[in-house]
Amino acid sequence: MNKLSKIGVLTSGGDAPGMNAAVRAVVRKCVYENIKVTGIIKGYQGLVNGDFLPLNAGSVSGILKDGGTMLKSARCPEFRTPEGRATAYENFKKQKLDGLVVIGGDGTFTGANIFGREYNIPIIGVPGTIDNDLFGTDLTIGYDTALNTVVDAVDKIRDTATAHSRLFFIEVMGRDAGFIALNAGVASGAEVVLLPEKKTSYDDLKRFLEKQYSYSKDSSIVLVAEGKKMGNTFEIAQRVNEEHPEYDARVTILGHLQRGGSPTVADRVLASELGVAAVEALIDDQKSIMVGMVDGEIVHVPFNQALKNKKGINERLFNLINVLSGGKK
Amino acid sequence: MNKLSKIGVLTSGGDAPGMNAAVRAVVRKCVYENIKVTGIIKGYQGLVNGDFLPLNAGSVSGILKDGGTMLKSARCPEFRTPEGRATAYENFKKQKLDGLVVIGGDGTFTGANIFGREYNIPIIGVPGTIDNDLFGTDLTIGYDTALNTVVDAVDKIRDTATAHSRLFFIEVMGRDAGFIALNAGVASGAEVVLLPEKKTSYDDLKRFLEKQYSYSKDSSIVLVAEGKKMGNTFEIAQRVNEEHPEYDARVTILGHLQRGGSPTVADRVLASELGVAAVEALIDDQKSIMVGMVDGEIVHVPFNQALKNKKGINERLFNLINVLSGGKK
Amino acid sequence: MNKLSKIGVLTSGGDAPGMNAAVRAVVRKCVYENIKVTGIIKGYQGLVNGDFLPLNAGSVSGILKDGGTMLKSARCPEFRTPEGRATAYENFKKQKLDGLVVIGGDGTFTGANIFGREYNIPIIGVPGTIDNDLFGTDLTIGYDTALNTVVDAVDKIRDTATAHSRLFFIEVMGRDAGFIALNAGVASGAEVVLLPEKKTSYDDLKRFLEKQYSYSKDSSIVLVAEGKKMGNTFEIAQRVNEEHPEYDARVTILGHLQRGGSPTVADRVLASELGVAAVEALIDDQKSIMVGMVDGEIVHVPFNQALKNKKGINERLFNLINVLSGGKK
Amino acid sequence: MNKLSKIGVLTSGGDAPGMNAAVRAVVRKCVYENIKVTGIIKGYQGLVNGDFLPLNAGSVSGILKDGGTMLKSARCPEFRTPEGRATAYENFKKQKLDGLVVIGGDGTFTGANIFGREYNIPIIGVPGTIDNDLFGTDLTIGYDTALNTVVDAVDKIRDTATAHSRLFFIEVMGRDAGFIALNAGVASGAEVVLLPEKKTSYDDLKRFLEKQYSYSKDSSIVLVAEGKKMGNTFEIAQRVNEEHPEYDARVTILGHLQRGGSPTVADRVLASELGVAAVEALIDDQKSIMVGMVDGEIVHVPFNQALKNKKGINERLFNLINVLSGGKK
Repeated sequence: MNKLSKIGVLTSGGDAPGMNAAVRAVVRKCVYENIKVTGIIKGYQGLVNGDFLPLNAGSVSGILKDGGTMLKSARCPEFRTPEGRATAYENFKKQKLDGLVVIGGDGTFTGANIFGREYNIPIIGVPGTIDNDLFGTDLTIGYDTALNTVVDAVDKIRDTATAHSRLFFIEVMGRDAGFIALNAGVASGAEVVLLPEKKTSYDDLKRFLEKQYSYSKDSSIVLVAEGKKMGNTFEIAQRVNEEHPEYDARVTILGHLQRGGSPTVADRVLASELGVAAVEALIDDQKSIMVGMVDGEIVHVPFNQALKNKKGINERLFNLINVLSGGKK
Repeated sequence: MNKLSKIGVLTSGGDAPGMNAAVRAVVRKCVYENIKVTGIIKGYQGLVNGDFLPLNAGSVSGILKDGGTMLKSARCPEFRTPEGRATAYENFKKQKLDGLVVIGGDGTFTGANIFGREYNIPIIGVPGTIDNDLFGTDLTIGYDTALNTVVDAVDKIRDTATAHSRLFFIEVMGRDAGFIALNAGVASGAEVVLLPEKKTSYDDLKRFLEKQYSYSKDSSIVLVAEGKKMGNTFEIAQRVNEEHPEYDARVTILGHLQRGGSPTVADRVLASELGVAAVEALIDDQKSIMVGMVDGEIVHVPFNQALKNKKGINERLFNLINVLSGGKK
Repeated sequence: MNKLSKIGVLTSGGDAPGMNAAVRAVVRKCVYENIKVTGIIKGYQGLVNGDFLPLNAGSVSGILKDGGTMLKSARCPEFRTPEGRATAYENFKKQKLDGLVVIGGDGTFTGANIFGREYNIPIIGVPGTIDNDLFGTDLTIGYDTALNTVVDAVDKIRDTATAHSRLFFIEVMGRDAGFIALNAGVASGAEVVLLPEKKTSYDDLKRFLEKQYSYSKDSSIVLVAEGKKMGNTFEIAQRVNEEHPEYDARVTILGHLQRGGSPTVADRVLASELGVAAVEALIDDQKSIMVGMVDGEIVHVPFNQALKNKKGINERLFNLINVLSGGKK
Repeated sequence: MNKLSKIGVLTSGGDAPGMNAAVRAVVRKCVYENIKVTGIIKGYQGLVNGDFLPLNAGSVSGILKDGGTMLKSARCPEFRTPEGRATAYENFKKQKLDGLVVIGGDGTFTGANIFGREYNIPIIGVPGTIDNDLFGTDLTIGYDTALNTVVDAVDKIRDTATAHSRLFFIEVMGRDAGFIALNAGVASGAEVVLLPEKKTSYDDLKRFLEKQYSYSKDSSIVLVAEGKKMGNTFEIAQRVNEEHPEYDARVTILGHLQRGGSPTVADRVLASELGVAAVEALIDDQKSIMVGMVDGEIVHVPFNQALKNKKGINERLFNLINVLSGGKK
């Protein structure tokens, strides 16, 4: 058991719903344990610039339900340089901090991993990203909310798809990972999902759509994970429209609205649990780990392990899309 | 007073939330008045193809809260030809219809106006379009819902804009009319709105943003009515980004999700009132008119008048955007 | 034209969604016109206690979408006494205020009317109450949001009513006025509404339900305005259950959840317009009036007139409930 | 491997969001596997009465997002008698069914357990209940949606609690189990939760509230699981009000609105997985089991075991309520 006197907390990388809930949990746990806590504004940028905000129980009152992050977020190129991190460490010492909680995704943890080892600082990571692409935790904070936002949008688009007998290609977030597209696909009754993990050829897509349209269907939804290259979805839709103008294919790119909004219950509970667990990990003298939730239990995952491994998609769910689309085997 | 025995009802043009509520009101009013009623599937297409669905009180049970339209909608090029309309009239007679209620926008009313006069058929229009661009009614069915959908999305995007100190350009529906952009702009606290009715030069936009960023603001929302030409918004954002990379400007096109969703209370009430009023107008021997709501009263507007005139935007609201953005006069 | 130097703004009475939007509009308009503005905490209580919060453009950043009121609200018995108001006036002078904007309902305006005349102070009222029971404005701030909250709840309850073939009595807010029950009734497809303005006898209710259940209906919703006496709804339901156990009648009291939540677009726009209009009225040397919106135009209504008169319910809407419930005339 | 030719599916007990999604999954899986499927209306009542609805892929189109259950639900006292079950079995044979999927809670499974053994019929249970009180599955269908509905309501009530500095007691569903109250409590930042699993004395409650009010807090939320006896919450609130009138305690009973609404993503995915798994279990010659999800894997739990055991609440979460409420250890 380590007697902590004061710690810092920051959010970094793309914002995710529930980051505020995690900040609140970190702060309230510190108050409970009689540890001082300061917010660091705009992620690592605030550490480099010396931008701090002392926090108490009241500072985080009412933020549990707010999207975004009250501590703000930013990219920080300086923190990737040894000079930037040296300045950050000076500010860390000036503030008399004993450790850090960093809330974010793999970019955040990469920085934490280097900085923590370089200066022997205890840093605990809390997985906050809508993409759910972090190894070592079943779910990341923000993912459940993003899923519900996406499915809410797809439900609305289906109203129009059905009314006009149209085919819709809907592009959702997920640069390297199809978690959002897959789960939102099952939940919205999408007829097809296109994922980075599963190479679906254009011919397979076409064959499948033709099979669908051969029995009764006169409208469909294809969910597309954005992938590395923007605009991909437009190309696919155009090609389909050229060969099958009767499908009347349209494209919607959901974009940034997937990031915001009040967090769901699952994200608020997960954020509350992991925020508290992060402070407990610091008290227990842990460092360079991410706290995660696996099978309902809190786990500690070394940054190296979280960053090196890749979480696979759920094959059972992937097969479900086809089974549920209404056709025979 | 005309004794009606049977009428038809259809939805046409872009679908709008509340169209189902209007169909329900037409059907229930017919039941109440002991008039038979049949649905016509896919708008004028169903009239040409003879695609009818007899409706009773139970047929419209539970649809009050559904987006889209149970009668479906479609474009119908054939109905623009005399031959197409002749076929439609034959089916109209075969079904022994005494009149029609058509729910849609200006394209729908243009067709109704020609067809009604050509064959001397009583047709009553019900204004259903999210764009609110119909003269002769304060509000159209679907507009209030679309506004709330847009503002819900902008609220979410603002979470991210604030967290990352970014400038967002958000494109909303409204080809010829800025009603959505203007009201959603006031309601979401947008710093600027770009409307087809108001030519804002690029220099004015730039000057305004620079003024905003000069006092404290480090994130902003610009709402853009889509206008005639897609992609416009990307060009503007790119130009801003070249001159002011520090604004970190991004673009989101809301797209088709603005059309769907469960209608708001205001849209359900308006649709219920106008659906009933349309049947009353047929009973009162009216023809070639749109029923509308002006200052809380139901009005009858000849199709010619509704189609020829253009509803202006609310100048008072437009000025509000600037007043509320936080700067001095 | 009066040169104002500094004004105060407060919210009072039951909170309503959009009160924050109105506060923001008052503050931003003051900033725009170079007038100083201070918030008064907990309504008239803050005036008596000298609890002030200076406000600038940034103070109201981000509150547009928040339910409740950042200035808080409270009942203030002291303000009903001459001594209380004398203390309030001393604080008013100490703060060097030139006028007040008070946001609330009839209780709020009654206080303002007395205080304003007593000390010859310019006070402008902004109608903020979910009940919509203020004469002189078509709609009050918060009413549209409350309606949507109620209908959202009724939609959910109807899922259960239909699944279990049950009759539900749902009690909504509205002590003296049935505006919420009536409009929510039309929008949710309620089969019956019970309003304070319309005395429906138990026998009429029973006859109507029996008529309903005689044709196909096996579930129904009755919306009840709470009225003067709590618990009324339980009595009615119990009596129905005794005579018709097969209806399986249940009761839900919606209660305080009707007050909160993020305001709808209509409420945000109305609050923004009236907040600005209130400051304009002070600039134009007005006093002892409420600003309202009638037929899309801003109006000034003397407090005396707003308080003495009673807004009637919409008879056309009331008749609609019966027409739309699915039976014959 | 058993060759199934035709099966039946029913929903029974209190309706839960996601029941329709489960029905859809059962039907679509049957279509996929070339098995005929019929719906049984109003649960066991339909089996006794011979009320069947043949289903195909199109019958379940569009129901994925609907609350309630298209197959309806009802209590069935006859099915508790040997005579009732004998009639049910006759209808089962007349329909040439090879097995049943029953979607519901413990009452549903109790009936299935007896009926299945009595007539040696393969019956598979799918856990559908908002209470989450079934042993053998981490989550039940409908629970996540109910949680989000509750927290959405509590967020709204907190707006008012904060605006008026009030204490709110909010009663949520959960007769024997506090799962809803506990998770919703963490997610809504409730200061106290009262659960059937944890006997909190009135004195403990009072002490805790006094501690809370001693540091800055001027409003609080207490979440109460309804427990065996209705009205309990009113008594507690009254007692608190007598001893601490300054807390200004109010009560809201959320009631039946917790049951309805469009299912969340988590519930739609769970329902889709378990519906398919139930048909797979029948194909695999299973009987008298419930399909569940434990640690992300589908499990088979004998009815006897599911009915005999009781799922405990999460102690870690329970302790979190206190930690997060803002006080010191």
